[in-house]
Amino acid sequence: MKDKKMVESITSMDEDFAQWYTDVVKKAELMDYSSVKGCMIFLPAGYALWENIQSILDKRFKETGVENVYMPLFIPESLLQKEKDHVEGFAPEVAWVTEGGGEKLEERMCVRPTSETLFCDLYKNIIHSYRDLPKIFNQWCSVVRWEKTTRPFLRSREFLWQEGHTMHETLEDAEDRTVQMLNVYADFLKEDLAIPTIKGRKTDKEKFAGAIATYTIEAMMHDGKALQSGTSHNFGDGFAKAFGIEYTGRDNKLHNPFQTSWGLSTRLIGALIMVHGDDRGLVLPPHIAPTQVDVVPIQQQKEGVLDICHKVEKEYLSGLRVKVDDSERSPGFKFAEQEMRGFPIRIEIGPRDIENGECIVVRRDSLEKITVKLSELKEYIPSLLETIQNDMYERARDHLDHSIYEAKDYEEFKHLIDEKPGFVRAMWCGDVECEDQIKADTTATSRCMPFEGNEPISDKCICCGKAAKHLVIWGKAY
Amino acid sequence: MKDKKMVESITSMDEDFAQWYTDVVKKAELMDYSSVKGCMIFLPAGYALWENIQSILDKRFKETGVENVYMPLFIPESLLQKEKDHVEGFAPEVAWVTEGGGEKLEERMCVRPTSETLFCDLYKNIIHSYRDLPKIFNQWCSVVRWEKTTRPFLRSREFLWQEGHTMHETLEDAEDRTVQMLNVYADFLKEDLAIPTIKGRKTDKEKFAGAIATYTIEAMMHDGKALQSGTSHNFGDGFAKAFGIEYTGRDNKLHNPFQTSWGLSTRLIGALIMVHGDDRGLVLPPHIAPTQVDVVPIQQQKEGVLDICHKVEKEYLSGLRVKVDDSERSPGFKFAEQEMRGFPIRIEIGPRDIENGECIVVRRDSLEKITVKLSELKEYIPSLLETIQNDMYERARDHLDHSIYEAKDYEEFKHLIDEKPGFVRAMWCGDVECEDQIKADTTATSRCMPFEGNEPISDKCICCGKAAKHLVIWGKAY
Repeated sequence: MKDKKMVESITSMDEDFAQWYTDVVKKAELMDYSSVKGCMIFLPAGYALWENIQSILDKRFKETGVENVYMPLFIPESLLQKEKDHVEGFAPEVAWVTEGGGEKLEERMCVRPTSETLFCDLYKNIIHSYRDLPKIFNQWCSVVRWEKTTRPFLRSREFLWQEGHTMHETLEDAEDRTVQMLNVYADFLKEDLAIPTIKGRKTDKEKFAGAIATYTIEAMMHDGKALQSGTSHNFGDGFAKAFGIEYTGRDNKLHNPFQTSWGLSTRLIGALIMVHGDDRGLVLPPHIAPTQVDVVPIQQQKEGVLDICHKVEKEYLSGLRVKVDDSERSPGFKFAEQEMRGFPIRIEIGPRDIENGECIVVRRDSLEKITVKLSELKEYIPSLLETIQNDMYERARDHLDHSIYEAKDYEEFKHLIDEKPGFVRAMWCGDVECEDQIKADTTATSRCMPFEGNEPISDKCICCGKAAKHLVIWGKAY
Repeated sequence: MKDKKMVESITSMDEDFAQWYTDVVKKAELMDYSSVKGCMIFLPAGYALWENIQSILDKRFKETGVENVYMPLFIPESLLQKEKDHVEGFAPEVAWVTEGGGEKLEERMCVRPTSETLFCDLYKNIIHSYRDLPKIFNQWCSVVRWEKTTRPFLRSREFLWQEGHTMHETLEDAEDRTVQMLNVYADFLKEDLAIPTIKGRKTDKEKFAGAIATYTIEAMMHDGKALQSGTSHNFGDGFAKAFGIEYTGRDNKLHNPFQTSWGLSTRLIGALIMVHGDDRGLVLPPHIAPTQVDVVPIQQQKEGVLDICHKVEKEYLSGLRVKVDDSERSPGFKFAEQEMRGFPIRIEIGPRDIENGECIVVRRDSLEKITVKLSELKEYIPSLLETIQNDMYERARDHLDHSIYEAKDYEEFKHLIDEKPGFVRAMWCGDVECEDQIKADTTATSRCMPFEGNEPISDKCICCGKAAKHLVIWGKAY
């Protein structure tokens, strides 16, 4: 019965993208709903993706000098209130703990929505001299934001993420770290998740509560919508002043240090699904796939078939993440399951293949079937995995490149946003009123002011017609 | 100034063990206090220990078929209340969230103190047939229990742990898994943390709220006190019945599945400190030490010294966790810091050593100094790390073995508990009244009814003199 469910067809993308997404997350058993409203359960297949993201990204972090710590889950209200913009940004969407151990708390505490305030509270105790700088701490944890509408991986009341919080001697050092971490994110998405992104700066309306600058990487989903995939913030010395963090500088005088923070979350699993998935289900990039090669025996009861399959797993492909599916289900079911779960390569081996000393290799991304000599698997499969990884990136890159339009006037802008799935490049005067107007008219928001390809395409704001200040990439977003 | 603090002497163990412990956790920079009452901050040196524990233990788990998941942080009150014993055990010590997103919640939710109820809520949805069993899920997360008195790593309002939750077809399968995981814990402590433990069963008074049996591993700290270091629970089908979890069995009839849970927490960092530490600070077992070898250059400004140090790091000892301390501090400070932080091996290399083609190797555990040819380091150090690992275990094993006493009457029992740091083996009638009496008289509690060495030593209860049922290991505990 379970087999049956797995191969029932899912809604096609073109018919209903939102329903397709929901079908995939359920049928690939990535998550389940819980009776805790707005929270989700990460099932083994979904959590394994996060484990692989963590492990690769953590290594990239540590190569840049990041040290991991763990801070408390709770923030006392007085601590949250120390930085004015920050509390205004987050207070409306926090959850409050008001009772503990059978008693009403003297001061209520929120469950962390983000931990700038807690890190500042620590840094105040441990930063005294320029010799104590920089501090480059990160934590992997869950945070809580009381969202009204939720969606698996994309928006839920609790989500998993990492949050880096650093302190520096100078504003330049802080700016360098802010950009450095944005680049770590972009490289990770490109090289490991096969997801191209646009790097840029957020407008003031879209920046983080309390930051002087927020940088972002924006990815494009299959339906042309944007997914903000990682952000990096430069706080200047605003929090440091609010929290009274001071250090003795090289000049023997007291200074406030400069701060950054940067975060990336389980939203990325949503991006993986919506960038690479197809009507058969998930398509996972080899670097991140919990199972890279799924070996499916044909006529597995025949003598020698399972032996060869296990030999492929243990001998030819040792070092790769290989699974032999020797369960009591038909090959057809197994194929459908492997395709739904998005494992990059399937190898089919039956008695006739063994006679011929070969097997069938099927690529999940292109569905291409290739006959390969068993004796060549050891060389062939690792190289095919890299080919798939690269091809998946190139396809996503093509899609992004071909889905960015340019608008010179507002009619054209509205038409493009309405009719063409994708982003629109257009000039902007810098006023939040125009951002609000564009959002009201089209539901599109400013995704970023891109670092590259930002040469003016006109001298007028697309919305109000006044002098343009920035080229902005606009799009509908998750 | 920071150097200075590091080498200030700490309180000696014999003078004041509790103060020694506090000094070590602070001076080795394992943790810091936070302004969130009862919660602690894991600093990089402390969190790195947890990362290594996680990584080794997670591998051991997965070898037994465990799959990781992530469940919500919150438990609605109605869900917590479904199993009667469980809610009675935990309700008094939970923290309640009563407001979210600016509104009072319709139903308050507690921050998970443990997640049996959430896992049951999931299992009810995904277990329908015997083919869906067993389910062997685990999560790494933090939990909250509103403790009145707290102590770094040993007892805090929030702590990090893993909690495994499994479901099985039969009570025997559940019992096997309960014992299997206890053995995984004991092997991990023995082989990786160099900590010997006593395995046994908890009395009803000490067992987990809602379990039919709780098994424990009990370690002995340097001061003779016990630290419960991991527990594994068999729940029978009590929760399954309370939550209405049913599956169609091989007999085509409906059954309730049988459940286990097992957990191990950041308390273990406390155990590492109190089992192996000495008056110079931490002593870390090589398997778990974030830095295994600390290379300290002598006269580092002299030509070639740092080059050789880095060659030792990158070439001779590649594959090990090696740090070259080339900071601008005196060798004496560096030695003291390495000893405080407990790195297993220090290598000292100066110009004269280089001339002689040798270096000084210092063991942290024994403080022994050995002159070793540079050309032999590559062979010597990995083998010395294993020797240290084994010697540390043997020393701890000796301490445990020589600190277990036997009492045949209550006067002797009280004398031993009072005068001899360690455990006392004595017979017990099985009544909770005697446990309560013993605790009132001596502050000692029943640690466990051991699996091994449980032959009766008398036929009378040590406390009431009635017929004895079990041999129990008693001790004062953290």
